[in-house]
Amino acid sequence: MASAEFRPLDEKSLIEYIKATPSLSSKIGNKFDDLTIKEVGDGNLNFVYIVIGSSGSFVIKQAIPYVRSVGESLPMTKERAYFETLALTEHGQLCPDHVPEVYHFDPKMYLIGMRYLEPPHIILRKGLIAGVEYPLLAEHMSEYMARTLFRTSLLYRTTSEHKRAVAEFCGNVELCRLTERVVFSDPYKVSELNRWTSPYLDHDAEAVREDNILKLEVAELKSKAQALIHGDLHTGSVMVTPNSTQVIDPEFAFYGPMGYDIGAFLGNLILAFFAQDGHADEGNDRKAYKEWILRTIEETWTLFQKKFTALWHQHKDGPGEAYLPEIYNKPELQQLIQEKYVKDLFHDSLGFGAAKMIRRIVGVAHVEDFESIKDASKRAACERQALELAKTLLKERRKFQAISGVISAIRKLQS
Amino acid sequence: MASAEFRPLDEKSLIEYIKATPSLSSKIGNKFDDLTIKEVGDGNLNFVYIVIGSSGSFVIKQAIPYVRSVGESLPMTKERAYFETLALTEHGQLCPDHVPEVYHFDPKMYLIGMRYLEPPHIILRKGLIAGVEYPLLAEHMSEYMARTLFRTSLLYRTTSEHKRAVAEFCGNVELCRLTERVVFSDPYKVSELNRWTSPYLDHDAEAVREDNILKLEVAELKSKAQALIHGDLHTGSVMVTPNSTQVIDPEFAFYGPMGYDIGAFLGNLILAFFAQDGHADEGNDRKAYKEWILRTIEETWTLFQKKFTALWHQHKDGPGEAYLPEIYNKPELQQLIQEKYVKDLFHDSLGFGAAKMIRRIVGVAHVEDFESIKDASKRAACERQALELAKTLLKERRKFQAISGVISAIRKLQS
Repeated sequence: MASAEFRPLDEKSLIEYIKATPSLSSKIGNKFDDLTIKEVGDGNLNFVYIVIGSSGSFVIKQAIPYVRSVGESLPMTKERAYFETLALTEHGQLCPDHVPEVYHFDPKMYLIGMRYLEPPHIILRKGLIAGVEYPLLAEHMSEYMARTLFRTSLLYRTTSEHKRAVAEFCGNVELCRLTERVVFSDPYKVSELNRWTSPYLDHDAEAVREDNILKLEVAELKSKAQALIHGDLHTGSVMVTPNSTQVIDPEFAFYGPMGYDIGAFLGNLILAFFAQDGHADEGNDRKAYKEWILRTIEETWTLFQKKFTALWHQHKDGPGEAYLPEIYNKPELQQLIQEKYVKDLFHDSLGFGAAKMIRRIVGVAHVEDFESIKDASKRAACERQALELAKTLLKERRKFQAISGVISAIRKLQS
Repeated sequence: MASAEFRPLDEKSLIEYIKATPSLSSKIGNKFDDLTIKEVGDGNLNFVYIVIGSSGSFVIKQAIPYVRSVGESLPMTKERAYFETLALTEHGQLCPDHVPEVYHFDPKMYLIGMRYLEPPHIILRKGLIAGVEYPLLAEHMSEYMARTLFRTSLLYRTTSEHKRAVAEFCGNVELCRLTERVVFSDPYKVSELNRWTSPYLDHDAEAVREDNILKLEVAELKSKAQALIHGDLHTGSVMVTPNSTQVIDPEFAFYGPMGYDIGAFLGNLILAFFAQDGHADEGNDRKAYKEWILRTIEETWTLFQKKFTALWHQHKDGPGEAYLPEIYNKPELQQLIQEKYVKDLFHDSLGFGAAKMIRRIVGVAHVEDFESIKDASKRAACERQALELAKTLLKERRKFQAISGVISAIRKLQS
């Protein structure tokens, strides 16, 4: 059922909507008597309902045309639901193991029906704060990133397909601008929205605003339109169990630089690392857990690199028009190209990861990893270490030859 | 008048078309008895009619859906006329002195009516072959490039405007692919279409196909979607008199790297330089003319750089979202950014210019500058020097600090 026009649903009208929508009602065996519906949207932009019946379940996500926490005074395009659906569908086809299935999309209601990621799935960030290890996380995330990024890039796609898709996602401009503002602009200037752990980090935030080299480097991280990226791949956009990893919420999806996704994930793992000292207590000094996070950072990049290169090798005679086989078919040249590409991608990822870390410490939206540390001076100490690392990564990213160098730099800050 | 459907016009049906089209017939005072119509399309893709009456004139350019020289077996999208009109209109608003005015566009007939660039306007390339100096050329071309590139880039445009325009020009994908093929692919592989001055350059062409570093560098010159570029800015796309410079034929226009346009123009001037020895005769050794070409190359870049930076300065509080004033408003930081941006643009331009030179010597479409040298061994000697320079520029472009270094490298090849 596609409704005539947009109206925000509540729990009552949602039941009527489900009844009139076969792709949804069939998921719960058309039984409505035993339904439980829970609104769980903790984000700012959407209503999220979990719908559970005796014979099935799903999630309903409805975009609303303003920022929830601020109200109707801060409007926000509903069309993001369309781009989220496009990205979920496209990424889902390329990597079904790690992207929730879409059951239904209503373009007029800006409403998506999709798989309910049942317990014990929790948001990765919460698991990291709680100190839970996920042995398959690096494997799963590197698989997700390698598949979705490679297959939507010119390494795999024809120029025509790529341009068509780039043009379509240009429509998601409002959310792109929001990203540009909060990631690449606000943290580097005086902005009402910026926050930091004051007064402890007053000087640090000012130092960011006064650092010319930092500003030059962040400006250089330009959009390269390489692949269909998730656009917001922090640890709050991943749901996990020990055996399952699911990437959700790609409403910021656009054709952008691959390093933006990879950096977002790695950067947020680094934030989680530096937050651990704030979560340590008598029962758990978090030392072992910190080692697991470092291993996961290292493995995620190493596995991504391996998987990405393998996909490239596998599809070297595929449709991709970035490096034509007639030109680049010598094994030693292939290797030279792949090494250069992956090295550039590594440096991009460090740069974007660093920019994402900085904005989480002195920009508008902070992360629960730090926010949940009650003692402000302790929190500031954690944040300052993360900020120092991020500044080094952003300014000197091209000096890092391998992920092991990043791990060493992290360790050095703690010694 | 917009016709119901596409049909290629001939001289007879063209008159009927003009009679039914007020925006055209008014240009010739609605008088049809004294009209002269001449078909002058020497290109491959269009019919071009010059229409001259006693009280006015115009040019009609109609895109046809196949490559003229090959026939209907090589189809070519007619929609390019739409993008040409878009680019002419947009660039014309930004730089009316150097872009011919559009009087009429018929989207169904893929037909553009525009200003007739009356004699003594000739194609720049022909003037260069003939050894004619144009004292204002560097001034005019740098003005054209600085204005059109700056004003359609994120240095001036908002992200929303920029994305909308990028999306629109993504539709010009077929001509983009043609460019990619003949510029970035074919010259570096065995291709039926490739030509070179055989047998003299057999080894040189093969050396291009075997040069791994060259291939790496040409692949790196990726689309950056910086600005609405002309897309084919060689010396055959410029009409000149000593006092007037007009840029025509932007049917390859798309949002791409600025260096692509700048490099195309400079690279073609360099080709014209190296061709001069082939045009020298007893009456004219072309030595003074070669010096003028070198001065024009140097001035074009120097003036472009100056004009571009001045526009940037002038619009530093404008709508552009690449470098926000709240962040980048310190004079020393502004300068640092501009220097870095212009330096990167310089290196991009040298790379693209070199790629354009290479493809004109060992790829499918050659330039009249060399083709008009009848003696093949003499032609090959000229071409080999140009090819050597191009290879150096493509592989070592980042080592050049200023345009004077390029001029020195050109001179060194001739000593």
